Amino acid sequence: MERVLIQPRVLKGFRDSLPAAEIARRGLIERLEGVFRQSGFVPIDTPALEYAEILLGKGGGETEKQVYRFADNGQRDVALRFDLTVPFARFMAEHASELYLPFKRYHIAKVWRGENTQKGRYREFYQCDFDCVGQDNLGADLEVLLIAGQAMRSLEVNDYKVHFSHRGLFNRFLTTRSFLEKSVDLLRLVDKLHKIGRDEVASQAKSIVGESIGSELLDFIDGGGDFETSISRIERLVGGPCPESQRLRSLMEAITELGLAEHYRFDPSITRGLDYYTGLVFETFLEGVPDIGSVCSGGRYDDLGSLYQKQMLSGVGGSVGLDRLLAGLEELGRLGHRESYCSIIILPADDSLLGYAFGVREELNRHGLAAEVFTEQRKPSQQFIHAERKGIEYALIVGATEKASGTVNLRDLRSRESRPGLSLEEAIRAVKGASH
Amino acid sequence: MERVLIQPRVLKGFRDSLPAAEIARRGLIERLEGVFRQSGFVPIDTPALEYAEILLGKGGGETEKQVYRFADNGQRDVALRFDLTVPFARFMAEHASELYLPFKRYHIAKVWRGENTQKGRYREFYQCDFDCVGQDNLGADLEVLLIAGQAMRSLEVNDYKVHFSHRGLFNRFLTTRSFLEKSVDLLRLVDKLHKIGRDEVASQAKSIVGESIGSELLDFIDGGGDFETSISRIERLVGGPCPESQRLRSLMEAITELGLAEHYRFDPSITRGLDYYTGLVFETFLEGVPDIGSVCSGGRYDDLGSLYQKQMLSGVGGSVGLDRLLAGLEELGRLGHRESYCSIIILPADDSLLGYAFGVREELNRHGLAAEVFTEQRKPSQQFIHAERKGIEYALIVGATEKASGTVNLRDLRSRESRPGLSLEEAIRAVKGASH
Repeated sequence: MERVLIQPRVLKGFRDSLPAAEIARRGLIERLEGVFRQSGFVPIDTPALEYAEILLGKGGGETEKQVYRFADNGQRDVALRFDLTVPFARFMAEHASELYLPFKRYHIAKVWRGENTQKGRYREFYQCDFDCVGQDNLGADLEVLLIAGQAMRSLEVNDYKVHFSHRGLFNRFLTTRSFLEKSVDLLRLVDKLHKIGRDEVASQAKSIVGESIGSELLDFIDGGGDFETSISRIERLVGGPCPESQRLRSLMEAITELGLAEHYRFDPSITRGLDYYTGLVFETFLEGVPDIGSVCSGGRYDDLGSLYQKQMLSGVGGSVGLDRLLAGLEELGRLGHRESYCSIIILPADDSLLGYAFGVREELNRHGLAAEVFTEQRKPSQQFIHAERKGIEYALIVGATEKASGTVNLRDLRSRESRPGLSLEEAIRAVKGASH
Repeated sequence: MERVLIQPRVLKGFRDSLPAAEIARRGLIERLEGVFRQSGFVPIDTPALEYAEILLGKGGGETEKQVYRFADNGQRDVALRFDLTVPFARFMAEHASELYLPFKRYHIAKVWRGENTQKGRYREFYQCDFDCVGQDNLGADLEVLLIAGQAMRSLEVNDYKVHFSHRGLFNRFLTTRSFLEKSVDLLRLVDKLHKIGRDEVASQAKSIVGESIGSELLDFIDGGGDFETSISRIERLVGGPCPESQRLRSLMEAITELGLAEHYRFDPSITRGLDYYTGLVFETFLEGVPDIGSVCSGGRYDDLGSLYQKQMLSGVGGSVGLDRLLAGLEELGRLGHRESYCSIIILPADDSLLGYAFGVREELNRHGLAAEVFTEQRKPSQQFIHAERKGIEYALIVGATEKASGTVNLRDLRSRESRPGLSLEEAIRAVKGASH
């Protein structure tokens, strides 16, 4: 009887992560975690599945259509999380008494959205959020801006630029012109500046708020000039210096003191579309790949979680676009390609040498060298091919002679040179020396 | 108008992970990853959501009742993965042409089961699997057994014992007594030995296979004696030396050569219930907390994924019980308790000192010291309380005097001693020296 096979496939918009891709992603995540941890941010986790009521709140058009929502076996109305912000708001409300404010957390985890899968959008993807909640002050704003830059430097990316502004300035501008009620439309429009271009923004702005204000809006969002020139121009447009411009001045002063001024640019066109932000807003660009858009964005909000608790909670945070950043690094040729964490393969000539081979591996591990023992008996030439495919650079061949003398035969798989009769210390020194 | 609040809560059987718990879990996972990576195992990932047909195959009673299954927005019949083995089988079939055999992978990820939540069972939990597939040989069996031990040693647990046996020996035993068709019942029964005790096993065995074989079964599973005594006894019971006993003899020989014999014990009562295993089987116990059961179990199978492909794929692997291991380490007092990765808090006296404070932090980070800048202006006594709650040991107080002279005031939060006027290098040396 022939078996009926099930076709092995994943759902549309989902994907497997093969070793090289997963090693790259893990590497990125681990560096970002290093940045968060060294700054005092702590990890948390929340369930992938929650009550739909918690995640969707009072409901919100687009989100609701995209969410994976169903009735569980107990007929509860549940949904997969579609971001990490809503669960974080619920988390803060639920655990208020167990946490110390200001609370600095990071959360790197998967979220799910049944989005249209065109344009390389996936239905399962990682988010990487970091936030400092429970205070509204200069120091927290500064910390989050600095972390955006540290994140890039941790990836050895030095040609990044963090563009920042303050939502309050934009609101003041609209208020002085009595167009505050159009702010959501205008915010969304300005947010599209880099996509649709200046002329299109101008034309649409004029249809929303009329000819003269439309061109003033363009004056507002036009960058250019150094920080002092820009901020003074904006101060004139909003009716003079104000607490919001003062916050940006203080931020830039500290950033300059830290020698990082070249990486931070005041850019009034940054509004971050969403109505959620109320203070600082920022986006981060890699200069070598401007087309991929911002790889780390965020800002200050003053209402995290008021759906779940009476207290208003102010915070400031950012989100690293992991997939976008991976794509950017790949395009810049800075991602590398590794099929394995090993640079060494150990080749025992037969099964009687396995004990010796694994002992050799343990010694290599003790010296910080990862090594794979190839346990299948094949021709050496086939073993070398296996190793080369994985990008492994050295083979340690161990036969009866090596075991009897406590030595190894070190083969450089690129130059194809062999050095028999090395002590293990000599072999370790040779491998470590070459990697410098 | 009063707002109606949504009660912040998680689903029954789900839980948040607060910082101290998440730091502990991450620490455990990172050490295990270190063990896998240094041995040449590579990470992969698969989607949380898959076609129900893929995950459930031809359907299987208990599993099907527990799985989170629903129709997605495109009316596809989908389910959340309930383990990492089935997706791995699908992965191997789907990517056969892109992978190099033998393929050694690890996968640490969440799975979901709508189980009864009594007895501390959760509906969302981590699995941590490692496998070597595409070969059936002594070396792969040895590697997986060694990794179980390395995993424990990486956690500084030295009183572990890996109990192992070979399913083929049990099958031979049943075959010689013509009871092979009862093997599933008997396997499940023997697997309960540690839970229900010898007498209950004896009584149930007799009702399954009759009086005389029932007591022979107990002879079979009774351990005791050194390796040679035990294996010889089993060889007599199965009709003499056989390939399966030879595999175990070779395994024990290599383990002894590696100086690890005290940690590995031949135990014929280990059967791993599931019908899935065909060769080596093992379980790992912590001697200080025997009640928690095995913390790392696995074995060899010879049919991974034949639901999806014609080729039979043999493999050997193990699974670390993360939650169980965390509970065990906690009971042994070896988990530690950290609310933060930092040992230092930096306290700038006012906002004009933020630039200097973050510069100090960057220098600490460069020396491998994590440090939090406390950005809210509060009384020093309140700042110290905040730091102590988080288990932070040192405060660096930076005021105008410190900035002017490029120094810091180092306060030991435990002894409450302050050392003003230290250069940053002196402070770093003091903190690092104390931690040794």
